[in-house]
This record gives sequence, structure tokens and C-alpha cells, in this order.
Amino acid sequence: MKKVLIANRGEIAVRIIRTLREMGLGSVAVYSTADRDSLHVTMADEAICIGPPKSSDSYLDIDRMLQAAEVSDADAIHPGYGFLSETPGFAQRCEEAGIIFVGPDSAIMKKMGDKAEARRTVKAAGIPVIPGSEGVVESIDEVKEVAEAIGFPIVIKAVSGGGGKGMRFVHDEQYLEKQYKDARKEAKNAFGDDRIYVEKYIPKARHIEVQIIGDGKGDAVHLFERDCSIQRNNQKLIEEAPAAVLTDATRADITERTAAAIGKLGYAGAGTVEYLYVEEEDAFYFMEMNTRVQVEHTISEMITGIDIIRLQLEVALSGRFNIRQEDIEMNGFAIECRINAENPAKNFMPSPGNIDRLHFGLGNGVRIDTHVFRGYQIPPDYDSMIAKIIAHAPDREKAIRKMRHVLGETVISPIDTTLDFQHYLMNHPKYIDNTVDIKFLERNGIIE
Amino acid sequence: MKKVLIANRGEIAVRIIRTLREMGLGSVAVYSTADRDSLHVTMADEAICIGPPKSSDSYLDIDRMLQAAEVSDADAIHPGYGFLSETPGFAQRCEEAGIIFVGPDSAIMKKMGDKAEARRTVKAAGIPVIPGSEGVVESIDEVKEVAEAIGFPIVIKAVSGGGGKGMRFVHDEQYLEKQYKDARKEAKNAFGDDRIYVEKYIPKARHIEVQIIGDGKGDAVHLFERDCSIQRNNQKLIEEAPAAVLTDATRADITERTAAAIGKLGYAGAGTVEYLYVEEEDAFYFMEMNTRVQVEHTISEMITGIDIIRLQLEVALSGRFNIRQEDIEMNGFAIECRINAENPAKNFMPSPGNIDRLHFGLGNGVRIDTHVFRGYQIPPDYDSMIAKIIAHAPDREKAIRKMRHVLGETVISPIDTTLDFQHYLMNHPKYIDNTVDIKFLERNGIIE
Repeated sequence: MKKVLIANRGEIAVRIIRTLREMGLGSVAVYSTADRDSLHVTMADEAICIGPPKSSDSYLDIDRMLQAAEVSDADAIHPGYGFLSETPGFAQRCEEAGIIFVGPDSAIMKKMGDKAEARRTVKAAGIPVIPGSEGVVESIDEVKEVAEAIGFPIVIKAVSGGGGKGMRFVHDEQYLEKQYKDARKEAKNAFGDDRIYVEKYIPKARHIEVQIIGDGKGDAVHLFERDCSIQRNNQKLIEEAPAAVLTDATRADITERTAAAIGKLGYAGAGTVEYLYVEEEDAFYFMEMNTRVQVEHTISEMITGIDIIRLQLEVALSGRFNIRQEDIEMNGFAIECRINAENPAKNFMPSPGNIDRLHFGLGNGVRIDTHVFRGYQIPPDYDSMIAKIIAHAPDREKAIRKMRHVLGETVISPIDTTLDFQHYLMNHPKYIDNTVDIKFLERNGIIE
Repeated sequence: MKKVLIANRGEIAVRIIRTLREMGLGSVAVYSTADRDSLHVTMADEAICIGPPKSSDSYLDIDRMLQAAEVSDADAIHPGYGFLSETPGFAQRCEEAGIIFVGPDSAIMKKMGDKAEARRTVKAAGIPVIPGSEGVVESIDEVKEVAEAIGFPIVIKAVSGGGGKGMRFVHDEQYLEKQYKDARKEAKNAFGDDRIYVEKYIPKARHIEVQIIGDGKGDAVHLFERDCSIQRNNQKLIEEAPAAVLTDATRADITERTAAAIGKLGYAGAGTVEYLYVEEEDAFYFMEMNTRVQVEHTISEMITGIDIIRLQLEVALSGRFNIRQEDIEMNGFAIECRINAENPAKNFMPSPGNIDRLHFGLGNGVRIDTHVFRGYQIPPDYDSMIAKIIAHAPDREKAIRKMRHVLGETVISPIDTTLDFQHYLMNHPKYIDNTVDIKFLERNGIIE
């Protein structure tokens, strides 16, 4: 029997262990001292402590992770999401150590981790990208040329940028030159690097992403798409599958194009191509590709009946998958609410601590992915997500109604959670009408 | 908004309330004093106490049930399963009071409640029945005639029979006359009625049942079939959908024939036609029709994505359903394990009491239908079923593997439950091979 080490914690570690069991594979958990009493530790066949709570000394420590794999004689490592899941150096070290990394090879991961390189790569493969300069622009004339080609508004961005520094939104040509100069000056001051590039500015869009699985040999299938527009500070709160805003024709087009493009790249395993979708134009613009399983893979599983973790493992362990695009069907509509141990009234301040009362709404069309149990002590060291509540129903309206009642039945206390906040969103008229975008919460004054 | 009274308790009351909420309908719970703190009472919009724990004074009391409906101004009554769900007199009283009974009309319910009448009715409608005499046989010559027509072995049964009295299994003609006379004598002594009838004896069969929904106007659809062969004293323990033993051709034939026949009868709502299935002959023999929702309706919901309770309510409230047979698809395989508060080591003695620790295995493909929660006190007055654990996966093997691990993760204590017993069955080689029949537990010495 093959053995797989899960280089992760929390609900995704539990999720992976369940599929390993169902596949008859051995499981090795790793844990920090803060996670000693966690469910993934109890559930795995073996468990190895890899260090103190601080992630850099445990879940992000490549050496310790590989030592744990060696000690436990694991054949493969599943990285989950977050932590080391998108660190090309980790995938490479696994490759060198002869341990199967459950994910794409390090080269493609590296490529997708570099914004400019990823854009070039997927554009060449046929994926629509945000119109803009091809890399760095060197002069105001070049900027004008690009602006003319793509049309205003545009955004000037620093190559080394971050936190809005060196970024300028330009709505017409009048102040273009001034803004260009300001952006370079600010970038120089902030990063010691005044190189900038130009992109079309997209003021209002949805976040729609396509779930892909590739066999690493040129084939890839898609599991349709998800709409993850409800976000707070780029953190997804609610995800839906499929994206109700799309027509069947648009859905078929973007999912097929994405699968074809990612297949062509020789991509192996699960991946997600994230797009900005502009409803008025019915147009997609590439944002980035995540080369690992997503938190919200669950809703794609609900509408397709496919276990994505199993597919990942099959591709990684056997190098192929037994699935054809024409066999993948879409059934119903699924919504996921992420439940975080946070206080929405205090700007979503994390609320770690003991769970003394715990009761989930259950029943027909309900799926709960969680690592918490009554008596569990949420450590303050990690992500505050404690459960994913998923409702599956024949259509979006029914799924929303179901979700409301599942949230209403659920009790998690005495810690603060986002249960009530999610319940509020499920009753918001604009959410119900599906007239939302990625700035929905800010635009409607729901958060500051 | 219409209001529906749930004339039931436990998990099915909770199940019905959830769908009522999702449909935007009001819910009225009824409860005995033993069920004061039950989940269905908490969850319903209104709750009315209808009497003491003894069922005949509460859940079986037609007058009190109708008074509760009147007091709460309910438009309809959903009877669930058990209790008054198959009492034609109750349906009739509802009809007379102008309250919608969520089920078929009392006349067809009455017909199906009478063994001989049901047999005649469904036979005429085209459903295969156990070969035998048409009603009472009056003489030994007539018995011989029937035996010759249907072939040995046969079983002679008393019309007023029960508990095996007046019943004789006859394997050849040698002792036929003696057995016939003994049967009549025994019946006379036991019931004061020596009338007997004759049926073909079926020594080994599976229990396979077809789920039907009729619109009451001549149309009915089926939601495929379930295999419920794993039973203890005619109590189902494990149910599966679909029946893995059937070929596609046999499945299509029996499900379509059943739907056509039940439709023709003008049947309204959900119903189940139960058959004995003899594998060697690929033959079905009608046992009975249940004119209400079954405990195991859940697994049909899992493989079709259809909410059967919703369909029941739609038919009852609007007199029609928006579903066509060609739109009903079968996806994957579902297994349900009934978890009872019983001690398998003590001949399944009920084990009522307080639930102090409660944790369900959850996740992808898992559905839990239950009314229990931590702190719940299981009353000694009712059925000992406390939860239904359902696993849904692409095929039977995967569903079994999933079920094993869900059972393994689940904790219910300190009361005794059938969790471990179910886990044992999930690992039994004959169960895994699916070489079982309705006497599986007895034949294999698992129970006495």
C-alpha cells in the first residue's frame, strides 16, 4: 500500500485523509505542537510532529517536511492549499528526493507564480488576458501607444509594486504624462525600481474561475466554473458553482478554452484559472492560475459528483486519469459559505478559543467540511476558517434557501464566528438578485 | 403562506420541516410530553402538545391530531411514515375536515392495506404477483389444482393468519392432503376461521422496492429502485440504491412497469412497491405497496437529486408535479445505514437515555438525517432509530468504503448503538460481494 503525507493541517488535511482512506492508501499527518489534538492527527494512520506553532518552523519548513516524509517512508506528499502548496522549491525538493509531489511539476508552478510570465504563457496558449503592454513600458510615447490600443481607463502599475504604491488609474489622456511620471517616481522611492507596465483598468468585475485537471501529457478536462465574487479584502467568503451569470454558450466557451490551453501546457493535476469577468462585455480576463486544490473545490464536487482529491492522487500516483470530458455532467447548484472564527462586528478580528457547543444543520443536500469538534481549541496561530458549509439544490434560489436554514440551525459557541454574517448575506437582496461584483461588500457599505 | 402540520416525530419530522422551510411553507409540529425538548419542536414555526407519551394517546390519536390542525389553522397534514401514515380512516377524516392529506386518497390507501385486495389490484394493473390461488381455496382438489399450476414448493396460509399459525410449507404432493387438513384445523383453533389460500413458496429472495410518485391523474414516475435485503426480523438495517444485482434491462422493465401500473390506478403522491426478487429467475413478486414516504427515501434522493418530500408536497398542494420521467437521471450509488439506539450484544435491546458525546463523520458524499443532538434524551417510548447515515459515491464499492469510514468517525455515547454492528456488516465478505438475501443475517449466523 502506498502512503501519502499530508503537508497541511485543518479541514483540508481531514478532507485529504478521508479520500486516502477511501482509496485504500496510507496517510501520514504532520502537525505543529499547537495542533497536537487536531482531528487530522487523530484520523491519520501516522502522525509526526514537525515543530512549534510558528508556520516557518513547521508547516512551511521544507527540510522538516521532507524529513517527516523520509521517516514515515511516504511515497507521496499532498500539499493541500496554502503553506507549501505553491512553492516551486518544495515541489523541486520532492522531485529530487524521489517523492511524488501531488501537483504539477515545479517548472510550471514557477512559471505560474510569476505574474508576467504567467500572463505570457497563458496568452500564448489561447487564454484571454487583460489588454496591456507586453511587459515593461520605457517611455511616455510607448504608454500613449498602449493606451490608444486598449482604450481608457488604464492603470499604470509598478513591476515591483505592492500595496498600491506606484499605481495610477488614468481615465483620459489629459493627465496621462503627469500620472506616468508620478508613478515612476513613487515606484523608485518605494522599491528602488521605477519600471512600470500598463493594463486596461477594469472597474467592476466578477471573480469567476475554471476548475481544471490535467494528466500532464497534454490532456486536461474542466469541472465547469465557480463564481467567487463575494469577497472581503480578496478573501473569498461565498462561492457558487456554476456561475449563474453565464449563458450556456459563454460557459462552454470559457471552460473549453481554458481546459484546452492548460492541457496544451502539459499541466498535471488540479488547477484553477481565475478570471475577472465583465458582465456588460461578456468578457473574461486572466488574473492568475492557482496550481493546487482550492478551498472551494467542494462545490465543483457537488455539481459533478467527482472527488477532486481522488483525481489529484490518481494523476500523481499513476500519471493518468480515467475521465473524459463528455462524461462530466453538471447537476444542480452548489453554494459554499466559509465559516471563520472571527468577529464581524470588530472588523473580523480573529476569535480563537474553545468550542464548547457545536451543532451543524444537516440533511438533504448539505455537506460540511470541517476539522473542528466539540472541545476543540482553535489555536491563534493559523487561518481562522473553521468550517465550510455547502448547500446543493436543483437551482440557485433553492440552494440559497437551503443555505439560510442550514446556517440558522448551526450553533458554534462561545467563540465569535461569521455564521450570522453569512446568514445576513444570504438574505441581502442584491446577493439574491445576483447583482454583485468583487467589491460588493464595500459598494454596499457592508464593510468599510 | 400555507401551513403544514407534521403528524410525526423524530428524524422524519425534522426532515419534513426542512423542506417546508425551503419551500417557504409554514410548519406546525405536534409532540407528546416525552418529546417536549425534541428538535422537531424547536425547529417548527409552531408546536402543539397532543398528549402523553403513549402513542395511542398522542401520535396515533386522530381526534387530537385534527384538533391540532384546526387550532393551528393548518392547510395540510404530512403524516411522515409509521403512526397514522397508512391509516385510511385518518386520511378520510382529513378529507372530511377539508384538510389536505399529504398522501394518496383514503380509498386507494384502504385497498393497498388489504393484502388480497392489493394483490388483485396491482395484478390487474400489470404488476407481477406471487403465483397462487385467487383468494380462498375450498377443497383439497382445488389445492392440488393450484399446486399443479404453480409448482412445488407451495405455502398454505390462513386468511386470518399471523405468527405462522395455520401456515404449512409443502415441498411435494406426498403429504399435501395431510398438511392441508392440519393447516385448516390449526387455523380454526387459532382464529375461529379455517379459510386458507395457497401461494408459491419463495425460499430465497431479495427485497427490492420501486419508488413511485403519482400525480393522482393517471401519471406516475419512478425514482428507480432500492435493495433493502439486509434486514433483522423484517426491519431494514441497510438500504442501497440502485439495486446492484439488476441488469439495466431488468431495472428498466420493473421500474417502468411499476410506474405505469401505479399511474393507471390514479395514485397521488409518493409510494413504494415492494417486491421479492429471485435472482436465479430474474423475477419479481409483489409483496405490498407502502402508501407513504419510506425511511430509506433518502438514498433515492441521493442518486436522483430529487427532494421526494418536496414532490409529495407539490402534488398534495397543487395537484400536479413538474417532473418528467426522461429528466430523472441516476447518478452514482447510495447506501443508508440505520443507526439504532440498541445493544446488538443483547439481542438488540433498546438503549434509551442521554446522548452525552456526539460526533458525526461528515464531508464529501455524506448525508446525515437525524433528530438527535448532544444533550438529547432518547425517550423509551418510540422507535429506536436515532440517525440515518448515508454515503453517496460513484459506485457500490466506493460507497461501502466511504460508509465504513463515516461509521468509524462517528461517536454516539454513552448509550448503546448499532454503529459497530453496521461497521461489521460493511466489512462482511458476503455483503461486499453482494451475495445476500432477506435472511442474510440468519443464514450466516450473525443473529439467531
